[in-house]
Amino acid sequence: MKGKFITLEGCEGAGKSRQMQLLTQFFDKKGIEYISTREPGGTPVAERIRAIILSRENENMADECEVLLYAAARAEHLKNRVIPALNAGKTVICDRFIDSSFAYQAYARGIGYETVAAANRFAFENCMPDVTLFLDISPTEAFLRKGGADAGDRIEAEGLAFHRRVYEGYLALAEKFPERIVKIYCKGTREQTHENIVAALVSRGIVKE
Amino acid sequence: MKGKFITLEGCEGAGKSRQMQLLTQFFDKKGIEYISTREPGGTPVAERIRAIILSRENENMADECEVLLYAAARAEHLKNRVIPALNAGKTVICDRFIDSSFAYQAYARGIGYETVAAANRFAFENCMPDVTLFLDISPTEAFLRKGGADAGDRIEAEGLAFHRRVYEGYLALAEKFPERIVKIYCKGTREQTHENIVAALVSRGIVKE
Repeated sequence: MKGKFITLEGCEGAGKSRQMQLLTQFFDKKGIEYISTREPGGTPVAERIRAIILSRENENMADECEVLLYAAARAEHLKNRVIPALNAGKTVICDRFIDSSFAYQAYARGIGYETVAAANRFAFENCMPDVTLFLDISPTEAFLRKGGADAGDRIEAEGLAFHRRVYEGYLALAEKFPERIVKIYCKGTREQTHENIVAALVSRGIVKE
Repeated sequence: MKGKFITLEGCEGAGKSRQMQLLTQFFDKKGIEYISTREPGGTPVAERIRAIILSRENENMADECEVLLYAAARAEHLKNRVIPALNAGKTVICDRFIDSSFAYQAYARGIGYETVAAANRFAFENCMPDVTLFLDISPTEAFLRKGGADAGDRIEAEGLAFHRRVYEGYLALAEKFPERIVKIYCKGTREQTHENIVAALVSRGIVKE
C-alpha cells in the first residue's frame, strides 16, 4: 500500500519547523511509520544543491538558475528518498515542496506560474502531495518573528515586500488547488496550530482519530 | 556589434583543452577581443554546480537531477558571463555547451532529445552558438588517450560503451544541425587540427584570414 505524502508550506517565520516537530511526535505516539524530510535537500546531493541556493555569496544568481536548481534538488529528492518511502508504505512529511517554488519564484520573483511549472514538470512524474498544509500567517507577523531583513540566508534576507508577495502567492495557490491545499489558522499557540493540523489530516482521511 | 559565439565539443580525450589553448593564442595574435570559458562552469555559482555534477561521491544522482543541474549552470553562465561578453562585442569561446547535454544525456544516457531540449529551453532564450566545432575522433582512441575507466571524474569514469554512445550522439547532432556544427578532422598532429579549426572559422566568416 502506498504511503501518504504530506507537505508543509508557509512564509519565513510561520513556525514550520516547530509544527514539523509536533507532527512527528504525534506520528510517533500513533505508531505511524513515517519519514520527515525537507526541500531543498533531503539527500546528500540535494543538500549540496541547497547550500548553493541559500548561500549569501550567490546574490547575483540568475532567476532561471535558481528555478532549475530547486527543480534539480526536487528530482533527486523524489527519486532517491520520497518515492522509495511512499512505495514502502511510509507516510512522508516534507518541509516545503513544489508550492514553495510557485510562491517564491513564480509569484514573488514574477517568473510566472507556467514557466516554473514547465521547469518542474521535468523533475517529477505525477508525484504530488496528498495534502499540503499552508500555515496561514500574515507576512508582517512572520517576518518580525524571524528577526527582520538581516537575518539568515539569501532567501530570508529578501525585504518585507518580497515576503508579502510570497504570502499572496500562497493565497493564490490555495485558491487554485482547494482540493489539495488546506489553510491552517495559526494565530493561537503552537499547540493550537498543531491541533488544527491534526484536525485537517483527520478530516481528509490522512490519519485516523 | 554583437560578438561571435564559438563552442568546442567532443568526447573525453578528444583534445579540447589543447585546441582551446591554441585558439586563444591565435586570437591573441590576431588581436581579436575574446573571452575563453567552459561548461559546466564559467561563473562562481556555475563552478559550484560543476563540482556537484562531477563529484564521484554523487554516483547515485538521478538522471533528471543531472539534466537540470547542467541547465541551471548554463542559465547562470549565459546570463552572467556569455551574453554580457557578446553584447560588448567580444568573441566567446566555450569548452562544451548545449551539444554536450544532448550527446551525454539525451543520447548516451537515453533520456531523449526532446526531454533534454525541454529542460534547457528554460535556460536560455535563443542564445545558440554561431558555430560549433566538433572534434571528430573515435571514442576508442579518445578513451585510451584519457587513460581508461579509472581516470578522472564521475563522467569520465563511465565505461567505453557509454563514451561510444556519446560519440554516436555527436554524429547524430552534426547531421541534425549541419548549418551550425562543423566536424573537425583531428587524426593528425594537434597543430594540424588547429589549422583545420582556423580554416572552418574562416570559411564561416567568423574570423578573417
